[in-house]
Amino acid sequence: MTGSIALNLRIEVAPLAIRAERLEALLVREPTGWRLPGGLLETGENLDAAARRHLTEQTGLDEAYLEQLYTFSPSESAAGKLAVTVAYYALLARDAFPDEPAADGRGQMVWSPVAALPDSLRDPVGIVTLAHRRLASKLAYSTIALQLMPERFTLTELQAVHEIVSGETLDKRNFRKRILALDCIEATGDAARRGGHRPARLYRAKRSGQVDFIK
Amino acid sequence: MTGSIALNLRIEVAPLAIRAERLEALLVREPTGWRLPGGLLETGENLDAAARRHLTEQTGLDEAYLEQLYTFSPSESAAGKLAVTVAYYALLARDAFPDEPAADGRGQMVWSPVAALPDSLRDPVGIVTLAHRRLASKLAYSTIALQLMPERFTLTELQAVHEIVSGETLDKRNFRKRILALDCIEATGDAARRGGHRPARLYRAKRSGQVDFIK
Repeated sequence: MTGSIALNLRIEVAPLAIRAERLEALLVREPTGWRLPGGLLETGENLDAAARRHLTEQTGLDEAYLEQLYTFSPSESAAGKLAVTVAYYALLARDAFPDEPAADGRGQMVWSPVAALPDSLRDPVGIVTLAHRRLASKLAYSTIALQLMPERFTLTELQAVHEIVSGETLDKRNFRKRILALDCIEATGDAARRGGHRPARLYRAKRSGQVDFIK
Repeated sequence: MTGSIALNLRIEVAPLAIRAERLEALLVREPTGWRLPGGLLETGENLDAAARRHLTEQTGLDEAYLEQLYTFSPSESAAGKLAVTVAYYALLARDAFPDEPAADGRGQMVWSPVAALPDSLRDPVGIVTLAHRRLASKLAYSTIALQLMPERFTLTELQAVHEIVSGETLDKRNFRKRILALDCIEATGDAARRGGHRPARLYRAKRSGQVDFIK
């Protein structure tokens, strides 16, 4: 039997949302720069619970879809101890967070475009980029995009979210046909007037909070 | 700052291959039943290297596609210490392993159909099932099936692997069209006679050992 090593386990969460027509990540200020919400696992805690606890404690956000992303090889943590990092991403629905998180006892936070993260962000393994890539590839085979939508949304708004995350322009007719065939959203019966256009039907997720796999 | 806990890190690998027209997992015998290849992380080792080391040491197989699957919350390990398990799956190409792994200094091994694992298999979190599910869903958006193929194969053989993993019957014309359009395989110029049929063209992976994402 070979020897074993004892490690600390660190959790880091990349919180993502659509703001101002782009994908943004919520960062926490540190004396020397910015970091992702996160911290150590505590005794008796499971990984998902720890990810949710750190996110809530450090950002005040408690309504988020959370998913484990990847576990990174041991590296020296800030405290000088060897730690393994389990990365998560959190998806925030459009109406689930204030536009500008307040600076409070929890420290300062900032929303940063994923495409232009601050140089001083401490993210050596590229968790934010990995989260964006996972999210983009899951668009093709799951209903994950609904986790970024407010409670009620138009098909045009849902298409915009797909386009922002994937970076690709989609054909309107094909997109609508594909989404409606998935049987994952339903019409609310109401309509919304956006800008000068004629009213558009409002939809909602059929299984709110749940991500279904599709082919 | 809250307290930290030190954990051992355990790696478990689900080795999968197509044998006898079904998906099978390679298991290692223990005094009390069967387990997956795996063990503890050693000092200075990274996760991927540890997964490969345990697989090679315990099964003799050193040519496998390895991918991290999921990290499970702490639980008490066999030695009574708290451990976090990082699960991997390994995909073995058809000609990369002997049909019956020999019982040697490394202990006894057995191939078991994934659909009928032995009751005494120690896999409380269901790593083999999770590996099968991940593999099946990746068929739709990556070239991962090629990792299960021998160096040269016919399109009929590749289709059979897709059907075995997904559990679905595929239309031959559509399958061929889709696979060839992906530009991930190329004709070798040779043909093979299988059974009483006319010779079928042999293909090989264009980027052997690499899994490409497709839409």
